[in-house]
Amino acid sequence: MAFPSDLEIARSASLKPMDDVAAEMGLPQHLLEPYGSDVLKVGLNAIDELADAPRAKYILVSAITPTPLGEGKTTTTVGLGQAFKHIGKRATVAIRQPSMGPTLGIKGGAAGGGYSQVVPMELLNLHLTGDMHAVTAAHNLLSAMVDNHLYQGNKLGLDLTEITWRRVLDMNDRALRNIVVGLGSKSDGVPRQTGFDITAASEVMAALALTTGMDDLRGRLGRIVVGYTTEGEPVTADQLDAAGAMTVLLREAIKPNLMQTYENTPVLVHCGPFGNIATGNSSVVADLIGLHCGDYLVTEAGFGADMGAERFFNIKCRVSGQRPDAAIVVATVRALKAHSGKFRIVAGKPLPEDLLAENPDDVHAGAANLRKQIENIRLHGVSPVVAINAFPTDHPSEHAAIREIAASMNARSAVCTNFAEGGAGAAELAEAVAEAADEPNDFAFLYPAEATLREKIETIATKVYGADGVSYAPLAKRQLNTYERAGFGNLPMCMAKTHLSISSDPTLKGAPTGWTLPVREVRASVGAGFVYPICGEMRTMPGLGTAPAAARIDLDEQGEIVGLS
Amino acid sequence: MAFPSDLEIARSASLKPMDDVAAEMGLPQHLLEPYGSDVLKVGLNAIDELADAPRAKYILVSAITPTPLGEGKTTTTVGLGQAFKHIGKRATVAIRQPSMGPTLGIKGGAAGGGYSQVVPMELLNLHLTGDMHAVTAAHNLLSAMVDNHLYQGNKLGLDLTEITWRRVLDMNDRALRNIVVGLGSKSDGVPRQTGFDITAASEVMAALALTTGMDDLRGRLGRIVVGYTTEGEPVTADQLDAAGAMTVLLREAIKPNLMQTYENTPVLVHCGPFGNIATGNSSVVADLIGLHCGDYLVTEAGFGADMGAERFFNIKCRVSGQRPDAAIVVATVRALKAHSGKFRIVAGKPLPEDLLAENPDDVHAGAANLRKQIENIRLHGVSPVVAINAFPTDHPSEHAAIREIAASMNARSAVCTNFAEGGAGAAELAEAVAEAADEPNDFAFLYPAEATLREKIETIATKVYGADGVSYAPLAKRQLNTYERAGFGNLPMCMAKTHLSISSDPTLKGAPTGWTLPVREVRASVGAGFVYPICGEMRTMPGLGTAPAAARIDLDEQGEIVGLS
Repeated sequence: MAFPSDLEIARSASLKPMDDVAAEMGLPQHLLEPYGSDVLKVGLNAIDELADAPRAKYILVSAITPTPLGEGKTTTTVGLGQAFKHIGKRATVAIRQPSMGPTLGIKGGAAGGGYSQVVPMELLNLHLTGDMHAVTAAHNLLSAMVDNHLYQGNKLGLDLTEITWRRVLDMNDRALRNIVVGLGSKSDGVPRQTGFDITAASEVMAALALTTGMDDLRGRLGRIVVGYTTEGEPVTADQLDAAGAMTVLLREAIKPNLMQTYENTPVLVHCGPFGNIATGNSSVVADLIGLHCGDYLVTEAGFGADMGAERFFNIKCRVSGQRPDAAIVVATVRALKAHSGKFRIVAGKPLPEDLLAENPDDVHAGAANLRKQIENIRLHGVSPVVAINAFPTDHPSEHAAIREIAASMNARSAVCTNFAEGGAGAAELAEAVAEAADEPNDFAFLYPAEATLREKIETIATKVYGADGVSYAPLAKRQLNTYERAGFGNLPMCMAKTHLSISSDPTLKGAPTGWTLPVREVRASVGAGFVYPICGEMRTMPGLGTAPAAARIDLDEQGEIVGLS
Repeated sequence: MAFPSDLEIARSASLKPMDDVAAEMGLPQHLLEPYGSDVLKVGLNAIDELADAPRAKYILVSAITPTPLGEGKTTTTVGLGQAFKHIGKRATVAIRQPSMGPTLGIKGGAAGGGYSQVVPMELLNLHLTGDMHAVTAAHNLLSAMVDNHLYQGNKLGLDLTEITWRRVLDMNDRALRNIVVGLGSKSDGVPRQTGFDITAASEVMAALALTTGMDDLRGRLGRIVVGYTTEGEPVTADQLDAAGAMTVLLREAIKPNLMQTYENTPVLVHCGPFGNIATGNSSVVADLIGLHCGDYLVTEAGFGADMGAERFFNIKCRVSGQRPDAAIVVATVRALKAHSGKFRIVAGKPLPEDLLAENPDDVHAGAANLRKQIENIRLHGVSPVVAINAFPTDHPSEHAAIREIAASMNARSAVCTNFAEGGAGAAELAEAVAEAADEPNDFAFLYPAEATLREKIETIATKVYGADGVSYAPLAKRQLNTYERAGFGNLPMCMAKTHLSISSDPTLKGAPTGWTLPVREVRASVGAGFVYPICGEMRTMPGLGTAPAAARIDLDEQGEIVGLS
């Protein structure tokens, strides 16, 4: 019999009543609001009310540089969360809300996989409690206020060619990347070029993920810079009188969503900022709650350790004031083989056949990437643990090769079979993580807030990416000077770089050396609270492929969803 | 002391637990899903499970031709629902979900007013359970599939200049009315002109409002025509493989939302199709449920009786198979005075001062409009009742004038003070409605489904609008021929006409005669299931004004919403 599909497994789950899931976390009833029977919203008062409860160990799940297919980081995160119960501990999982665009596009869902899933997966993958739509609405309200300001006479003197605020939709829609608005007659607005990004790329999403509460959110939204005047002065959402209504639209979305895994482990699902131009981490408020709900809080950061983990340490933890206790680097045989540089993996295409043959030497040939990502965890004073996410096509000798690489770096490691076996398959990982988290905590930021913007960029580029240095395009230099002058110099840095290489060149595998990071331009998410240098082509609106997932999704004769994976 | 604001009144409401509200309607627990503490979703199985419960009297609330300010039709609907309890009867109210765009624009909320409101009004006015966003997502998925089809080679041969499917957002954003998409490089799609409508104008919204269940919805969405091939053949959502995923996205949105009024009367809130180019009525499924939950189901139709009521009778009741038992025509002193032609009322501007002075003669001068709208109810064999929605600035002699007009038409009437007094203020109306609903039911459609499209248009124009006839532009003639040939000839007619006059000229007040209805073009909402002739300028994407409501909406220091009215 074939291994059942993710959707079939998810359907077979024995869901525990959500009130029981919450009660086991110590969340009192008055903080909970049901949204249907399978998800609760958790009120923000939980942060204060739980402050005296014991603090959980704070575990980050990161990874080596992934292939375009992803390496099962969410599956490992969910599996580890489940595994703690198998070693007698209580854990909570905190993950991002999947973006619906890719779910309907090429990717399918993002609930983990196999017997390590968040359930019901169709709820997680489609709408959930509407937070994503609330972000869309708040973002586009500001967009409408910008264009209405132009239409009503442009009293603030916005330079039409310097408006940086676009619109967003949670959809893969390439035709909206570059558009001209305001066509038609005089009453139809002011013509100008702009475009749509996917909602995950919205600065509102990043602000929501980084906020610590309603007042803080109101402040962040007000500081959003939508563009510049003809004199070069920034124009903010507060100047357009939009931030109050935007905050009101996010009144429910600021509350984390509580779901459960296949094995009834609690999961806080909250926010989904893009991993390339934003932080790629779930929300601060979910973590501030989850850190007082058990023995371990397991959260996930997007892409490899050079990307999501670096931002987790230097942006998210700086805002939250929390210190991580251990960090996992998820590795797979196929990805390490790919880092040997001998294979090319393309999303939507079958894996190369010789990549699937037993060959531990190919795994060793890709070791540099794993070593560098372990080092990137250690750079922040955090204990690394290597999780080997096992695939049915792997060979024991190849898993052994990964363990040897980890051992050579003095890092703990464990083979994880939780996709096929659930939490029990990650029990060894849970033991290793527990040991790592008990080591002395030497967590430290990579750079101080007071460092200049250039110093921050150069520190990340040389220490984390292994670059020789940084080259700035003239535009980037001007922008850095502008931001320093405007008082944005103390913001942390969120490098917009490819996730497919530690370098800025997606074709370079392993741990490239002897290269210079090119910074083409620099943008500032002043409201969310970071500066992001653009180091390569960054796509902020995906497209649909030749065979979109949406074309397969339907209801069967029993009214059950089919085609969602 | 000033009369409290709608928001202040709403906050003072004593909300009953929603489970109790549902229980009093006879809705069993297993059909209910809570969304927060103040709203439940009602499962569609309720239609079958309640089928044997006694049938309520079906009461429509319509109006005379309104001023741009509206005449308090929702306030009357809610007040009447509340009033039935005061005369010892059980009633349910069924209304549309307000569009968020206008709430953030000029209009403020749409929850009724004063002590005749749906509460919590901020929940009703902002997001509710996300149905509107689900419609947006389903609609825009089809849009993305259309543009992706062009990008991937356009195998179906869509004519780029004949693509009628646009995109939608629930926002007042004039700059999106006319846009060019697909700019940029070759990988950014195919350039073409298109635009956004407000979500309420989406055919998906109209289909959701008219559907009778999941299978029926799947069928309607599949039949949506997105455009035409170069050979003039229609291309459907089914041909683009989009309708399955669209249906899945609407899986929760198809379930009506249950809330309550200030006096704890149950309110089914569901769907909000635009009143000018679509049906302007709440959903069929909500009515099919509500008709078995008490003695009376009170529902509202958009704009005047020539608009929403005519569509309620001939489109909605044709789909649902239900017969209305009475229909209310809401009239106000100020609107009837405006129908004298002596005054001009502009949204966002103060009322003319002499309109507020005591003058029953001016009321009589506008009587023709009320008479014609009463006649429009009687044309369908339904008993009319005139509800006089009293304003503090009215004079008793003016109310008496309206009652005289009603009496001259042999119609019952009642003065309603439910804005200030709650349900007790509409008890007299409830008595009159109960009497009217007990009269023999002679309900009949205005035209048979088999009539030609032209016959349907001409029947509505001459009988309901009082036109001498209809003139068709050459484009309209071609389109009517195309639709008849394509097999759409048996669809009912949804006239897209101004709501500010019974005629097609918004400046003509009263009951204009001696005019001809000009049909400029004719469009077909094949999926939703109607044809709509365009008779004048129809705006499908509102704009923001010089002082948008959004600029006043904010949170106060206690975290409470301010500025929402």
